[in-house]
Amino acid sequence: MSPPTHVQEVVFAARPVGALVASEVFRLETVPYHLQVGEGEALVQTLYLSIDAGFRAFLDEGTQLTIPLGEVMRGSGVGVVREVGTGSKVAVGDYVYYRPGWRDWGVYKVDTLKVLLLPIGVQLVDYVGALGSSGLSAYIGLTVIGKIKRGETLVVSSAAGAVGHLVCQMGKLLGARVIAIAGSPLKCEVLEREFGVDKALNYKAPTFYDDLKAIGGIDVYFDNVGGEMLDFVMTQMKQFGRIVACGTISRINGKEPPGLRNYMNLIVQSAKIEGFFLHHYAQFYPAALEQISSWLADGKLKRKLNILDGLDKAPQALEDMFTKGFVGKVCVRLAEVDD
Amino acid sequence: MSPPTHVQEVVFAARPVGALVASEVFRLETVPYHLQVGEGEALVQTLYLSIDAGFRAFLDEGTQLTIPLGEVMRGSGVGVVREVGTGSKVAVGDYVYYRPGWRDWGVYKVDTLKVLLLPIGVQLVDYVGALGSSGLSAYIGLTVIGKIKRGETLVVSSAAGAVGHLVCQMGKLLGARVIAIAGSPLKCEVLEREFGVDKALNYKAPTFYDDLKAIGGIDVYFDNVGGEMLDFVMTQMKQFGRIVACGTISRINGKEPPGLRNYMNLIVQSAKIEGFFLHHYAQFYPAALEQISSWLADGKLKRKLNILDGLDKAPQALEDMFTKGFVGKVCVRLAEVDD
Repeated sequence: MSPPTHVQEVVFAARPVGALVASEVFRLETVPYHLQVGEGEALVQTLYLSIDAGFRAFLDEGTQLTIPLGEVMRGSGVGVVREVGTGSKVAVGDYVYYRPGWRDWGVYKVDTLKVLLLPIGVQLVDYVGALGSSGLSAYIGLTVIGKIKRGETLVVSSAAGAVGHLVCQMGKLLGARVIAIAGSPLKCEVLEREFGVDKALNYKAPTFYDDLKAIGGIDVYFDNVGGEMLDFVMTQMKQFGRIVACGTISRINGKEPPGLRNYMNLIVQSAKIEGFFLHHYAQFYPAALEQISSWLADGKLKRKLNILDGLDKAPQALEDMFTKGFVGKVCVRLAEVDD
Repeated sequence: MSPPTHVQEVVFAARPVGALVASEVFRLETVPYHLQVGEGEALVQTLYLSIDAGFRAFLDEGTQLTIPLGEVMRGSGVGVVREVGTGSKVAVGDYVYYRPGWRDWGVYKVDTLKVLLLPIGVQLVDYVGALGSSGLSAYIGLTVIGKIKRGETLVVSSAAGAVGHLVCQMGKLLGARVIAIAGSPLKCEVLEREFGVDKALNYKAPTFYDDLKAIGGIDVYFDNVGGEMLDFVMTQMKQFGRIVACGTISRINGKEPPGLRNYMNLIVQSAKIEGFFLHHYAQFYPAALEQISSWLADGKLKRKLNILDGLDKAPQALEDMFTKGFVGKVCVRLAEVDD
């Protein structure tokens, strides 16, 4: 396939004030193709882009993740190599995992591209799902940070989400008793029926806090939301309990929830909150990918993908994560896989 | 020495409302001696009682540490065995570490008494100081929870306090760069001059937050206060930083500080807050006691003791911890050691 005449990009045009309104924050641009492939570089066509709630943190000012206005929106994805420069260690036709940002074609340093294997039972789109940052966060968060053990009680917030629905399933595969927290009766039903959790609790139900107390103490809390729920959960941790702080959705869409008041309970229970930023744990990727691939191939880990077609769908998809929500992983498909 | 005709006790008479006022909360009682030493029991005379800021947590309602009104105030100390029942594994004259509560004589199950050794260079009073819960908290917090490493930057709050002044010295002995936080220029001077910290910062100084930023990032924060300082420190943690949550003085004297808002930084830095309740780590006591005894005997760890004479001094000493403050450890002496 020859390069296109034009390249599409989503530009970060204005900082959000409060909750994200995609149409005010992002701008789709089409620019004439101007890419040159130099030594040690490759031209890559984007196939899938991952859409993650965590991207919201790029948009606020003054954080360590902030991106400048006017830049192409950041994000990871899967692409296919279309042209290579001299000295390249990838080949035309290779599938790669990389951080293209929200654009459909781009030239990248070859050493920022990770060539993907497709063993039997694994699909390319898995690399923006169970084998991408969502799945790696779920597995490494549960095992390396949470050190989940067979028979322990695992509670998962935002359990129907991109990371959560994988944490729930992996928790069961690792022998834990899994309590899922989600925001609607429908999501709770899906979690119990499709993803096999022991119990799903609707946090909007009036009995929610009592329901959570009734589970009798928490060994590992996989926290995808922060805020008031995290504060309450701190009162329910067992001795030596571990809170895996993976995301703070309640915070990152421009709202400021009340601070955490119950941390005294961490002392009484010798419990901890441990934050983790996935890229700091790259040494654990190979083992994680091997285990997750094997679960996928064996049909033990179910995919739940929301695939939206077209780069123009990306901004609205990010906005929708905080409003309507999705069950499972959201990604955008920019082109069909060749074969 | 024969048993006394009367026993003195400090009774927990009324729950404090807000800050502790000792005269409203405690009542000294003198009751006729009525103790009977049964099988497997021993009569023990109290010599020293430890006075700890953490005791404040016993007095509030509805916590896991709450004690009922009308009971003798709880607390640990050092005593001497004066009489033993049949089948006892301790002998008259043995010095013991135990939890007598605030009373001058008592009968205890022998298996709740830990017989103390006094190697050369170790004093009996050390068992309510560097070899008691303060020293064990300092050493186990630094090594087992904080996993401090040579060359790392350690920040200690309430650094002139019972635990803090030991953490500072142990931090230096373990090869860390130690930054102490205290509440007066005098305390800061003592910390730098007597306890050898690299830098002491006065948190009441207008430049405090800038001073703390200027140290260039924190590997381990030994937190004795919680509250706003903990919240700020979370913005200054280095990657894989560890916050050892040992006490929350800002909370436990009846004030409600603002909650923690900066925990998102824990995620970005893959950092953690780990609470620890000393009694959950009893397996580490023997090694800790050996190391601390050796430092004491070698003169490498300096004692700083405030010894008050008389059981009647205990209530006011606890109140004073939250108001005037002390440099070093506070204890009450009930009787002189025989020899």
